[in-house]
Amino acid sequence: MPRTESPRRGRRPGDSGTREAILDAARARFSTAGFRDATVRAIAGDAGVDPALVMHYFGSKQALFVAAMEFPLDPAEVVPRLVAPGVDGLGERLVRFLLGVIDELGDANPMLALVRSAVGHPEAARMMREFLGEAILDRVASAIDTDRPRLRADLCASQIVGILVARQILELPELAAADRETLIGVYGRTIQGYLTGPLESS
Amino acid sequence: MPRTESPRRGRRPGDSGTREAILDAARARFSTAGFRDATVRAIAGDAGVDPALVMHYFGSKQALFVAAMEFPLDPAEVVPRLVAPGVDGLGERLVRFLLGVIDELGDANPMLALVRSAVGHPEAARMMREFLGEAILDRVASAIDTDRPRLRADLCASQIVGILVARQILELPELAAADRETLIGVYGRTIQGYLTGPLESS
Repeated sequence: MPRTESPRRGRRPGDSGTREAILDAARARFSTAGFRDATVRAIAGDAGVDPALVMHYFGSKQALFVAAMEFPLDPAEVVPRLVAPGVDGLGERLVRFLLGVIDELGDANPMLALVRSAVGHPEAARMMREFLGEAILDRVASAIDTDRPRLRADLCASQIVGILVARQILELPELAAADRETLIGVYGRTIQGYLTGPLESS
Repeated sequence: MPRTESPRRGRRPGDSGTREAILDAARARFSTAGFRDATVRAIAGDAGVDPALVMHYFGSKQALFVAAMEFPLDPAEVVPRLVAPGVDGLGERLVRFLLGVIDELGDANPMLALVRSAVGHPEAARMMREFLGEAILDRVASAIDTDRPRLRADLCASQIVGILVARQILELPELAAADRETLIGVYGRTIQGYLTGPLESS
């Protein structure tokens, strides 16, 4: 039925809906193909635009994901900044930053939406695993100069996702009521241990 | 319309479906009222039996919950056994037990179903928070003779739920591939720190 062109096809750079069309295509493609297999070329094709235009608007696939998921922060900016001073004190810096963002965002926290979605749907779990891996965990791992850096980053992620679930979603009472500095101290030591402590089994 | 009695009303102790009717009523009542507010009396009423019969079959509200959720283990038996030797080494015992159960159960793990449900639905989160609190966290807290025992139990829960989500649901690659003894060593130290280490903020 070629009578009318789909509104998603044949957009020119100036079209006011182009950016939104790219974001819609990205959301759909990321959630079905995962982060790694969703190419900028395929997303551009779905949106009816040239891949160069996607890069012009967003700069990278990671940045496109961040925009599509409406993250308030881009890990490509935040993680290098937290990691830059070196691995000493990185545990506390990560936890201080995370708890600050959590408390600031409240219920509008897209990390919570992503965790809810990932826990409920295997495709969303894959998308989160792949994006987390490239955008955050590989970057944290690159700051670690001891053995098994990516396992260490995964261990950190397991405590951080546990904070999100236990404190923000399950709302365990003492954890929800604890003051932020106490949690930064306790969790900061845990994360630091995962980054730089021993991994052998006793 | 009093023409036919509901099949759920007026059961006698010998009825073969009585136990199932109580479990159905318990599942429905726990998921709408939460664990704490779902009384044995109300569940018995929903199932059309005497509360004494519920206690005769299940022994306690906690045990009824465990049966209704089809847990393979009863925390009322497991937790006291893990806690009994004292708080020394409890971190490693808890993690060793948990990872053993996780690996043994595989995809048929009802803990995963409960986490998925709790993360997706506020009523299920409430049910899990209340059951976890009474059946596990208060018992762990009672073994701790330092300051803020229940906060310490909540901290342990945040790492344990993080292991479930990051390793079993997100399947972070290095975490999923790590050998069990390494994880028992690393997470055992974390849990032990939460149980007996300092809580002050640096």
